[in-house]
Formats: sequence, C-alpha cells, structure tokens
Amino acid sequence: MPPINRREMLKLASITSLATLASASPEAASAEPATEHGPTPRWGLFEAALQGPADGNPFNDVQLEATFTLGHRTIDIRGFYDGKGVYKLRFMPDTEGEWSYITRSNAAALNGKSGKFTCSTAVTTNHGPVSVRNTHHFAYADGTPYFPFGTTCYAWVHQGEDVQRDTLEALQKAHFNKIRMCVFPKSYEYNHNDPPFYPFERDAKGNHDFSRPNPAFFAHIEQRIADLQAIGCEADLILFHPYDRWGFSSMPAEADDFYLRYVLARMSAFPNIWWSLANEFDLMKAKSVQDFDRFFHIVEQDDPFCHLRSIHYSQVMYDYTRPWVTHASLQTSDFESAEAWLKTWRKPICFDEVKYEGNFASRWGNLSGEEMTRRFWLGVIAGCYVTHGETYLDPDTAFDETASPTIPWSHGGKLRGTSPARIAFLRKLVENTAALPGTNAKRTGLDAQPAAYYLNASSVDETGKDAEAILYYFDYHQPIFYEFALPAHDFTAEMIDPWNMTITVLPGTFKGKSKIRLSGRPYQAVRFRRVRLSTP
Amino acid sequence: MPPINRREMLKLASITSLATLASASPEAASAEPATEHGPTPRWGLFEAALQGPADGNPFNDVQLEATFTLGHRTIDIRGFYDGKGVYKLRFMPDTEGEWSYITRSNAAALNGKSGKFTCSTAVTTNHGPVSVRNTHHFAYADGTPYFPFGTTCYAWVHQGEDVQRDTLEALQKAHFNKIRMCVFPKSYEYNHNDPPFYPFERDAKGNHDFSRPNPAFFAHIEQRIADLQAIGCEADLILFHPYDRWGFSSMPAEADDFYLRYVLARMSAFPNIWWSLANEFDLMKAKSVQDFDRFFHIVEQDDPFCHLRSIHYSQVMYDYTRPWVTHASLQTSDFESAEAWLKTWRKPICFDEVKYEGNFASRWGNLSGEEMTRRFWLGVIAGCYVTHGETYLDPDTAFDETASPTIPWSHGGKLRGTSPARIAFLRKLVENTAALPGTNAKRTGLDAQPAAYYLNASSVDETGKDAEAILYYFDYHQPIFYEFALPAHDFTAEMIDPWNMTITVLPGTFKGKSKIRLSGRPYQAVRFRRVRLSTP
Repeated sequence: MPPINRREMLKLASITSLATLASASPEAASAEPATEHGPTPRWGLFEAALQGPADGNPFNDVQLEATFTLGHRTIDIRGFYDGKGVYKLRFMPDTEGEWSYITRSNAAALNGKSGKFTCSTAVTTNHGPVSVRNTHHFAYADGTPYFPFGTTCYAWVHQGEDVQRDTLEALQKAHFNKIRMCVFPKSYEYNHNDPPFYPFERDAKGNHDFSRPNPAFFAHIEQRIADLQAIGCEADLILFHPYDRWGFSSMPAEADDFYLRYVLARMSAFPNIWWSLANEFDLMKAKSVQDFDRFFHIVEQDDPFCHLRSIHYSQVMYDYTRPWVTHASLQTSDFESAEAWLKTWRKPICFDEVKYEGNFASRWGNLSGEEMTRRFWLGVIAGCYVTHGETYLDPDTAFDETASPTIPWSHGGKLRGTSPARIAFLRKLVENTAALPGTNAKRTGLDAQPAAYYLNASSVDETGKDAEAILYYFDYHQPIFYEFALPAHDFTAEMIDPWNMTITVLPGTFKGKSKIRLSGRPYQAVRFRRVRLSTP
Repeated sequence: MPPINRREMLKLASITSLATLASASPEAASAEPATEHGPTPRWGLFEAALQGPADGNPFNDVQLEATFTLGHRTIDIRGFYDGKGVYKLRFMPDTEGEWSYITRSNAAALNGKSGKFTCSTAVTTNHGPVSVRNTHHFAYADGTPYFPFGTTCYAWVHQGEDVQRDTLEALQKAHFNKIRMCVFPKSYEYNHNDPPFYPFERDAKGNHDFSRPNPAFFAHIEQRIADLQAIGCEADLILFHPYDRWGFSSMPAEADDFYLRYVLARMSAFPNIWWSLANEFDLMKAKSVQDFDRFFHIVEQDDPFCHLRSIHYSQVMYDYTRPWVTHASLQTSDFESAEAWLKTWRKPICFDEVKYEGNFASRWGNLSGEEMTRRFWLGVIAGCYVTHGETYLDPDTAFDETASPTIPWSHGGKLRGTSPARIAFLRKLVENTAALPGTNAKRTGLDAQPAAYYLNASSVDETGKDAEAILYYFDYHQPIFYEFALPAHDFTAEMIDPWNMTITVLPGTFKGKSKIRLSGRPYQAVRFRRVRLSTP
C-alpha cells in the first residue's frame, strides 16, 4: 500500500453529515436571484455547476449541500468538488413540476445559491431507476417490469477507448440489460495493464493521495454509465473489490468512507445505477463484515434516490436477510436452494456468478455455451435471475504467455460465445411470459412451482390466484409425452427449443389435465399462456 | 393377498437350522458305497440328485443337509426338494482336489448318502465369484479385477422366451457385466403381463401356497443365471420388491424366511450370484427395516459361498455401515457425496439407480444418452460404479394405451439407446487404466482424488504410493489448456472423447507440472499412464 497522509485522513473523518450546515441560512443569500435552468426530463440528470474555492484541499475543506424542493417535499443532497474550482450539484427529479433548490456551504461563494428548473415528461427510453417489485422481482419506476439478463465486464472502463466502444456495441447486440462493473481498476490473471485514469491524485512515485479524488477518473465512468443508460443497460457498480495492486482495497476506514461519499454525491443521480458494495467481499483481507455493514449505511444515508443495494461474496455468504440489502447477489449455481432462500430472504435473487462461458484452465472460466444457457433457464425457472460472463482465449494464442488477450469478463470487448444469443432469446421469452399487460400489474414475474414434477414457473393474474402463463423446462429429461396439470382455463401451448431458439405453437387450446406429445429431446421447454392474454 | 394356510406356516417356522441333524450319523450309512461323480471344474456347479419321499409336503417335512470335505476342511450346505421325489445338493468347489460329501436327513432314504468328485481346473471363462477388494473395489476369486458396468432388467425372466433370448444377446452386445433382476414377477407401469411361471403352487382361484415352491419357476431362473454366467455377466438377484399384485411382497415372516432359505439352497452354488435383499425396500409397506436385517442374517447363515450382499432403497437409505452389507446399492446421482460415503462405509459403492436413459413421462425414465454417459463418468471418477437402465417408448405407439411395449428396464429385450456403446467404451478404458498388471496387485481400482481442481481418479502401484494411471474428466468444463500436476515419473498422455469414443495419444511423455493443450470442448477426458505400464 502506498504511504498515506494520516493528517489528511483525520480531516476527511471530520466531514460533517448532511443537513448540519444549517447555519448558512438561505436568507443570508436571498438577495442573489435564483438561477433559471432549462428543463430536465423526469429521471434525467439535473446538474448545476458553481464556482468556489480551489485552494487547499477543496475535497476536504469545503462542504456543499443543497435542498431540492417541489411543493412541500424536500430532498437533501450533497454536492461535490469536480476540480478547477468547480462544484456540482446533481439531482434526479422523479416527479414532473417546478423544482427549486438552495445550497448551504462553509464556503461563502457556494452558500445560499438557489435555482429552479422544470421537470418535464420522461424521455421514452428512460423508465426511471429499478427497484424491487412483487417481493422477488424488479420493475422500473414507471411500472415497466424489469427482468435482469446481464453480463460481467469488471474492468471495461479501465481499457482503451476502442475496447470500450466494442463493449457498448456488444452489450447492445446481445441485448444484455445489466452489467457488473468495478469503479476501481483490476489487477488479476490476464489483467495486468494500467488504467488510463486513476481514482486519486498520484505522485511520480505512484503514491495515491486518497484525500484527493481525480475528477477525470469519475467523469469518465459517469460517461460510460450514461452510455449504458442510452442502450437500456443497468450499471451494477461494484464499489470495492480485492483484485488490486495499488492499495484501493486496503485504504484506511476514513478514506473508504470519504471515497464512498464522493461516489454517492457524483453518481446517485444516474437513473441506471445499482450499488454493489463489493465483488467477493470475503476475499478483501483488510476488511471485515462490519466494514461492509458500515458502507451499506453510508450508501443508505447518502443516496437520496434509493438505488438497489447488494454485495457479492466468494465463499462466505453475506447475510442477505439484513434490511439494508435490497436483493441477493450470489456466487453459486445451487439453484435447488433458491426456494429456501427466496422464502427466507423475501428478496429478489440474482445468481451473479454461475461461472463463465469460455475455455480458461480455471474451473470458473470454462463452461460450455450449452451449460451457461442451461444455468440461465434453471435460474429463471427457480424464480430468480442469472448473470453471464465470457472467458474465451483464442486457441491460436492461448499458449502465448506474452499475449494480452481481451476477455469480456474483465476487459469487455467483442463477445464470441454461443450463449448470449440464447440468453437474449430467453429474456424476450420471459418478458413475453412474465410481464402482465398493464404497468401496474401486481404480480408480474415468474415464480417457481416447487412441488411440480418437472421444473416450472408461472406468472399469475392480478388476483394472485390464477396462472396467466406457465413455463416448463425439462433440463436433461427427454419425455416423449407428459400430462400437464393446467388450471381450469384455456391455454395455448408452445414447444420451445432454448438452444435452436424456436417456438412452435401447438394447434388448439388446453385446459386441466392435458397429455401432450413432446419431442423426446433433452433441454426443451413448454410455455402455456392463458387464452385471454394478447400474444406479443 | 391370497389366503395362506397358517398351520403350514407354523411348520415352516420349525425347520431346523444347519448341522442340527447330527443324530443321523455318517457311520449309520457307511455300508452304502459312495457315489462316484464326474469331475467339476473349480467354481463350477456340482449337483447330486437323490431320490426321497414325495408324499406330504416334502418342502416342509423333509430336512436334508450335507457336509462337503476336502482334507481337514468341511463345508455344510442345505439340500432342497426339486419336485417329483427328487432332492438335490448343490455345491461350488473353490479349491481343486478330491472332495467328498455325506448327507444327513430326517428321511431315511436321504440320510447318510455319500459321494465324491474331483474339482478340476477352472474353465477359462469362470473366474469364480466376485468379492470386495481394496476396500472400495471388486475382484473375482481368481484375482482378476472386476469393474461392474451393469444394467437393469427387473422382470426379464418373466417374459416370453424370445424376449429372454433378445436380452441375453443385447447384454452381450453391449458388454454389460452385471444385471439387476428380480426373483418375483413384477406388476407396475407397462408391466401388467402374467409371468410364464409362478414361484409357488397356485390353485384355480389364483391363491398361492407359500409352503410349496414351484421348482420349475426356480429352475427357469437358474437356467438364466447360467446363461448370464456364460456371457460373463453377474446376476444381481433381487430377493424382494414392492411392485406386486400377487402377495409376494407381503407374505408372513415365516414364509419370507422359508422362501429365502429355499432360494439360498438352490442358487448359492452359482458363481455369478449377488444377493440384493430388495429393490426399494422402503416402499414395501408390509416390511420393516428389522425384517431386512433378519433377511441379511439368513443370507449370511445359509450361503456357504459368501456372495456379495446389499439392499436398494427408494427414499430412505439403508444403513450401509452394517457389517452384513458388503457394498452399497444406491438410488441417487449425488456423486459429490461419494467421498464422504466411501470414507464412512469403507465399502464399494454402486450407484444402482441414477435414473434411466429413455423418453418416459416419468422423471426417472427419460435421461438423454449423453446425461447417462456423463453419470457413468462421474461415478467412476468418484471411485464408484454405476448401473444403466433403458426406458424408451416407440414414438409411434407412445400414445397408444393398448400397446404393451418391451422396455429393457423391466422386460429386457433389445436396446436402442445411445449410452450403452459409450458405457462399454468406458468399461474397457477403466479395465485398461485401473487394473494393474498381475492378478494379485493390491491396489487395483480407480480412487477419486478429491482435493484436485478437476475431477480425477487414479490407480496406484502396489506400494500404494505412486500413481500408475490417472484419469481426468472435465464434465461441462471446456478448458483450452490445463497444467496437470503429475508425479515425478514419465507418463504417456491420451486425449479421450467419451462420446465419440476416440483415444488420441499425445506425442512424448510428461512428468511433474505439465501444461497441455486441450480441445476446448466439454465432456472430454485425459488419461495418463506410467510409462513402464504395458499398454493393452
């Protein structure tokens, strides 16, 4: 770990919490007219820039907060120093109307500044932030169901621009709608390159000053988060991780907390952020579970927009029952335990690392495309969600120790695996199976039917009683027929081939006990949809 | 259950145990000259027929025992009534030399009869009965290693002659060397036909007299067991099972014991018998675990040749630690638990029902050929053994409720699945990998290496220290290379494709840490053999 300046650290620790700067009363600055800003669409990013002191350590020395108001509603946010004497306030308005704000600061130039703007109708591609719905599922703020079908590119923002462009293209082409990605750069197998930006100021010897964030580093990540938002992709942002050679995984507690608050001030206003407190927190030897508990509390306190919060482990599971965790982020492919976990935690479950499709020597990085596809199906049928990752070495250069291959799981870049197309097929299928018509449907989502003879999951109507759609998955079973026990309504039946991505509608409708001929091939699925459903 | 004659049952209960007929002293009959029999090869079936009383109930009324002698060694056996006034003694000599016998009976015509025969060299196809070797493995009595690669045809001896012929042909063609088969006929899904023979005398109303076995029924099974022996197949004979409409699964305790002793007297002398106390004992509602404990004791007492003994369950595992169980006979595909079970039980483990290859609607009867093949590999690599079964319906007649298909799992008959050829390939591979040169090799068998990164099992040399051969199986992993940690000896390496059944020898030899290019395809295997091994 590089040496740190302990005195600076102690100063960081003295940063006041939100709303303690009340002495800088709004009235003291009321003489100054409010800045008129252009409109911000609902769930868009409102940003106000203010000029303030650039001397000393503005990150430490200057506190800036603001209160945003709509009618009788107020929301306190924390501003941040963006370098070169510029301070910023960021805000994500969630309600249309006339918003105003006023600042408080210990720096006179930043105190009592006010402004206003109109929050206009949301742009059609922005459905707002995702939160939990129906206990085990997700939806956007506008009510649109959200089913996570994501991938993993831990360090993509720390690669060259071309790789980053390739990554965005690949994500869009593959229809992934979530990405697991780290704030800090990564040092691990196949990941020995230095990042283009460092998160903190860095001297000639490579020592990092944890009390001086590098605004360009964060601005760069924010651009990528905005790019993701433009292609409908949630950024599952990993705040800490163990794969580090620079000291970012073992900063003192004060530096950790300061870093967190800085990230939260900068990024909370992005609609498509999810907070992942850590990747494999239990491998971070300098941290305890209690440190992560504290980080959760900081995120809870400093994110005014209440984005989703979770944490990922390697061997030792975090206690996902804790109230500050919104959903589980698992490293396992034990789908058979999903039923018990869903019942215990009463939260959505993302199987965020089920191993990766690829050809690595390491056991975690060499699933076949078929097996990855199968794991997505098993997860979905268990009433949960699954995350992809890809780890292919080019067979021609796999033995070349000097090669620095671009591997999507870490660098991003182009995808070459066979599972992404099948995952996209499944995503569409789930969206058309589990999303009830109407944005306020109470029961959107597929819930496993554990007592059933074969794996199946169903979505139910708004009464919560009747199956609207039932999706069966036969895994390695290859029956030539099966007697399905359907509810006493008419259903259409479709034979689904998850690998060949075909859907074959059976003639007629089915009701109650229905003996249906199947293909006799393994890894097939059957979908039943209630006849009154309009078929998308 | 048909009505039984309680008085007859009580008589059965009074049958004396072996060696209690000492009052019929040999000397009393010494006047009669000993019968000279022709030679019996080692582990062949010696049989002597004696004429005795045919009135009353000879099964009940007459007790017949004999003592076989070679030098100072004696072996007591029980004779049995074979109908029409004929009584038989059967004996399997395990040592070459001049054997003699003398009978004891409560019937004068059968008492004090003596005879002698020479036990000659074994025929080359008969290696003797199988027993446990090296804690977790098996070998024939002549020291030849035996690796069980068996299948399941529960009721094949109860079908028409053509199906029985087809079964023997199919077994031989597929190179199965063990068959799980029932003594009693079976009544279950797709198995509604009546058997050609019944085990007991049966009146016009279909009532069975459990005190009067039907010799033709047993002689027929014995012929099939001899047929199996001729093709190198062990008969894993299931003594009780729950799939019954005749009352054989719910006889009174006395009848159970009488039946067992009758079977043991008739069949123990066959070299290729294994005793399976029950199929799915826990589904036999009329029986308790204590009944099966008692059955085990009867088998221990009455089988002079100590054939292998186990019992198979459905849901509730029998306690395989009990000393009278020679090996475990599991219904599960939980290969990951094998390590713990092997350590706890210190016995060989046969995964005797891992579900069947087929296309049934029932979940237990519709594995793909690929999945069945995979399960065999997982079992072998776990240091255990696996049993096959096939349940294919003809797609053309699958919906025909009046069809009575011939399904190997129950009826026997022709095999059509894709796994048997791959299982035969694996059997040959294991025989060439795990059987050390020399019949007395102490460590023959593949033992799982649980700490290894990938699944692998090895056979070790006679010192028990050094790997002779190592077999890796990559399951759904598809690495493009892997660094194997070999012992410090030269090994040859072969790439094995378990599905395409190819073996590709790599040029050169390998020692210590060896980074080797692999195919990047899933479900592949690699075999290393110590160079000094002669390659079969």
